[in-house]
Amino acid sequence: MKLKSGLAAVLAVAFSGAVVGASTPGPSHGIDYPTGWQEWGTIAVSHRTDNNTLRVILGNDVAIEAARKGRTNPWPDGAILGKVVWKDTELADWKAATAPGRFVHAEFMFRDSKKYAATHGWGWARWVGLEQQPFQKGPQVCIGCHMPVAKRNWVFTDPAALPGRPVK
Amino acid sequence: MKLKSGLAAVLAVAFSGAVVGASTPGPSHGIDYPTGWQEWGTIAVSHRTDNNTLRVILGNDVAIEAARKGRTNPWPDGAILGKVVWKDTELADWKAATAPGRFVHAEFMFRDSKKYAATHGWGWARWVGLEQQPFQKGPQVCIGCHMPVAKRNWVFTDPAALPGRPVK
Repeated sequence: MKLKSGLAAVLAVAFSGAVVGASTPGPSHGIDYPTGWQEWGTIAVSHRTDNNTLRVILGNDVAIEAARKGRTNPWPDGAILGKVVWKDTELADWKAATAPGRFVHAEFMFRDSKKYAATHGWGWARWVGLEQQPFQKGPQVCIGCHMPVAKRNWVFTDPAALPGRPVK
Repeated sequence: MKLKSGLAAVLAVAFSGAVVGASTPGPSHGIDYPTGWQEWGTIAVSHRTDNNTLRVILGNDVAIEAARKGRTNPWPDGAILGKVVWKDTELADWKAATAPGRFVHAEFMFRDSKKYAATHGWGWARWVGLEQQPFQKGPQVCIGCHMPVAKRNWVFTDPAALPGRPVK
């Protein structure tokens, strides 16, 4: 891959920083908190009408590269997918639109086909609420819900179509 | 802001690269194509039921910082907001969910209170389809739709609530 510019690097570093003094949430299911996920790239979005939530699916750099290249069944080891969930709410100035309301949780799938062989090659974790309380009810809660997509490497959403990323 | 690590910088640069050999789309309304927007951070998502589209609202680094700090009325000069739009489609394995279907367009608001004073302090641009054809029908097409949010600095969607970004 080509490098775009040094400026991009400087900016990226500046904004990979974070709220000074905040502490990192503890692990969920023994998995460390994926610091910095708020600035990850976007893979897809979704809207669930059964529980009225809007979601964005983010990915770390390994996941983003895999998504852009279509290498998603299986996803490569090292990929982390993040699903960020809000209750939906009516947009005040456009009644036919829904937008994010209350933040619900951020949940993550960590791909490591060896380390997580016992849980289908993925580590499953979730941090709840704006305070990011670690979810500890067990990966089976996550896996149970993902059963319909066992043949899709356990991932519901396809990467959204995006234009190629042109170089200046 | 604190720097997280050199590794983050290296990865960020690697993935600010792009499809080698692709050419940059031409300007829309005289505004240059905002190369690299596909990797920008997420500000919000939305779902319009009047035209069945799912959207993610992205921001360049200036916009992301402003969103995280609540400085959005007005947004600071230099902020660029990107709205990426897909037709929605039913998720095959979860019938009560909609996910991105056909890519429609990516549209952008470029904040510069002086340069774009004649168009309410924003430059308005859009690139259509996966081929990213520049939209040239005039900023009034964009502004007309955004009239309901003139008092919100012309922006519909509030930044979605996100947990603080803890530092390791």
